[in-house]
Amino acid sequence: MGGYQAMTLLVAKFGGTSVANPERVKDVARRLVSCHRGGSQVVAVVSAMGPATDELLALARSVNASPPARELDQLLATGEQVSMSLLAMAIEALGVRAVSMTGRQAGILTTTVFNRAKIAEVRADRLKKELDRGRIVIVAGFQGVTAEGDITTLGRGGSDTTAVALAAGIGADVCEIYTDVDGVYTADPRRVPRARRLAAVSYEEMLELAASGSGVLQMRSVEVARNYGVVIQCRSAFTAGPGTLVKEAKDMESAIVSGIAYDDSEAKVTVRDVPDRVGIAAEVFSALAAAGINIDMIVQNISENGTTDISFTCPAEDLTKLRPVLDEQVCGLGVRGYVVDESVSKVSLVGAGMKSNPGIAARMFRVLADEGINLNMISTSAIRISVVIEGGGATRALRALHTAFGLDSDQVFEETQLSSEELAAKAEKGR
Amino acid sequence: MGGYQAMTLLVAKFGGTSVANPERVKDVARRLVSCHRGGSQVVAVVSAMGPATDELLALARSVNASPPARELDQLLATGEQVSMSLLAMAIEALGVRAVSMTGRQAGILTTTVFNRAKIAEVRADRLKKELDRGRIVIVAGFQGVTAEGDITTLGRGGSDTTAVALAAGIGADVCEIYTDVDGVYTADPRRVPRARRLAAVSYEEMLELAASGSGVLQMRSVEVARNYGVVIQCRSAFTAGPGTLVKEAKDMESAIVSGIAYDDSEAKVTVRDVPDRVGIAAEVFSALAAAGINIDMIVQNISENGTTDISFTCPAEDLTKLRPVLDEQVCGLGVRGYVVDESVSKVSLVGAGMKSNPGIAARMFRVLADEGINLNMISTSAIRISVVIEGGGATRALRALHTAFGLDSDQVFEETQLSSEELAAKAEKGR
Repeated sequence: MGGYQAMTLLVAKFGGTSVANPERVKDVARRLVSCHRGGSQVVAVVSAMGPATDELLALARSVNASPPARELDQLLATGEQVSMSLLAMAIEALGVRAVSMTGRQAGILTTTVFNRAKIAEVRADRLKKELDRGRIVIVAGFQGVTAEGDITTLGRGGSDTTAVALAAGIGADVCEIYTDVDGVYTADPRRVPRARRLAAVSYEEMLELAASGSGVLQMRSVEVARNYGVVIQCRSAFTAGPGTLVKEAKDMESAIVSGIAYDDSEAKVTVRDVPDRVGIAAEVFSALAAAGINIDMIVQNISENGTTDISFTCPAEDLTKLRPVLDEQVCGLGVRGYVVDESVSKVSLVGAGMKSNPGIAARMFRVLADEGINLNMISTSAIRISVVIEGGGATRALRALHTAFGLDSDQVFEETQLSSEELAAKAEKGR
Repeated sequence: MGGYQAMTLLVAKFGGTSVANPERVKDVARRLVSCHRGGSQVVAVVSAMGPATDELLALARSVNASPPARELDQLLATGEQVSMSLLAMAIEALGVRAVSMTGRQAGILTTTVFNRAKIAEVRADRLKKELDRGRIVIVAGFQGVTAEGDITTLGRGGSDTTAVALAAGIGADVCEIYTDVDGVYTADPRRVPRARRLAAVSYEEMLELAASGSGVLQMRSVEVARNYGVVIQCRSAFTAGPGTLVKEAKDMESAIVSGIAYDDSEAKVTVRDVPDRVGIAAEVFSALAAAGINIDMIVQNISENGTTDISFTCPAEDLTKLRPVLDEQVCGLGVRGYVVDESVSKVSLVGAGMKSNPGIAARMFRVLADEGINLNMISTSAIRISVVIEGGGATRALRALHTAFGLDSDQVFEETQLSSEELAAKAEKGR
């Protein structure tokens, strides 16, 4: 007789595209039933169906232009509650017992911060009991409950965070995150046709990639995974590939450069001739923070003639909030004025091996100079180098760097490898 | 200074038609804010928006032809959760604080019978706290939670029952039930143009009217109201009238005949030549009960030649379930066969004063005989007389009885008094 083999315990998260309609829900049900019959204990975490959340938001705004945060969460939570119960029904139709759970039923306790709560604790007793009874458990992502019994939502990327937190809470072997792409790539295959899927990346690299504009995983979920040592597997909901593992760096050999991220959603702002006195930068950025504007990179040069220029980047969508602050507060500080450039792009090299390999930055700048690309801003971390360039040169910069750092695949990626749904989803994301 | 005046505590229930779209939700919000500003403490109970429940049911059936009961309740509960949060948002938009509550949050504890749970207990501590903080509280009707934390729904008429149970639980002064009609009438105004709105009816009369086909209130909610002494006020969500009070008979003078109900949704079945032996009726009706068929009236005549005919009525929609039972089980008992008549109508006189006024039945039969209307079946209770007649004579019977028992109004009711929505809703109900 064979030895004892431990049962695999699996958390699988499916995004809104994967459960967008009843047929997709049935596809997910088949996949989960197949895992279950293969001997795994299965917990699935689901987002709301396709555009459901946007539809609920529109409904809210039709009765109140600024819906109160608590009520918005009571409303939005229904989106995941619909998809979780439908998925449980679809599984039962295949002859396997399933039980759906709201965030509350699954024991996802959160802080009392509506619309962007943080998970405080996972009390998974009921969930584990259902698993032990042989059920597939479906949990509504993106939501939890406060100590007072109010429903909360976790904000952007919330369902990924639910999945990783649950995986940590029940000690799952792996947390599979199913999306519309089949893993993490060395670069966006739409821009770099020789991009390669990565078999594995470290938490640190994934965090830098996410922060630099690679949209496969949300930063929060990767942070939780890192903190609790949860192995994430990014996979496609539409194909069968192994995807990309996100795990501890010590388990893998560090590539010098793992991937190249690209982000054209930011604008560059330069405040001109800022008086060079103590505390002036603090005043500028306090005013921006008070207006809720997220600043990414900041560059300040040494002063000449008692003044200096300060440049920073921020999401282009924040510009409408930003301009009044600059006009009314920052210009009152004695600066000469400001310039906004919305046409910039940010290109970032990310790789855990950079730490021990000096000269990567110099090589990067040389490659870009050879392409005739001018650098507007530079910022670095231990495992990342980001440059802001004129948007027109971005694709050229990406491809040259991809080749120069030895990332090119032998195969050329073609858009036709994507299904029509993937293309639609990609187009959607690209907005 | 004036003396102390107790604050009115009010529960108001709004059906699906009243919150069918954002504009209607805002109308309800205005009505509640006006009550609140008038000095009342206000709890509103809402149904799902218009066709939301039917849409969710269709979604469920698209993934599972027989959706499991627990999962169906997890799904259906979202319908009321959407309308409750939208109504709270609409109230906040008018500058009054509001807080929505799911069945669970409102402390509606039920039995563990999915799809048709019964309310076991109302734990309204949180709800009362919110009222005392000056909030309008909106509760999702139709739903509750089991001791294990599973979501349940209460079945047909569930939102009315939620409202009445909450009113009992918090000691409300009145439970207003807003529907698409402006009260309880002496007869259906579409059939009897001289029908009058009743200012008040007793619980007993309302129960008999509901059981006899008058659709304004569900029987369950009236039963709960009677058991806990909750005063119900049936009102229109679209007009300002006072509606009809449903309360204890001792508070009012009993009319001999309060109203005339009409029901054409039943079929009459006659089982022919049933052998006259002990226990045969029990065998017949046990078989029907086991098949889940609701029997209304039963008539058995004295036997001739050792056999008798048994007639009964049941919902016409149950006939597809009924025929196999008759064919396979009842016909095996030695009966000659059976006859089904779907064209019958039931007409019922209801009035608490009948108890102390003999001869009402005789007068009723005389009026019908004068109209040339033949009686198929007769059944009576202390405060009701029902007759089954051929459907063709129903309107004539209703009008003749309405006049004969002195119910006619001076005013003739015209359909044009109804809004287009009310007419649509009435047509809907009439199916």
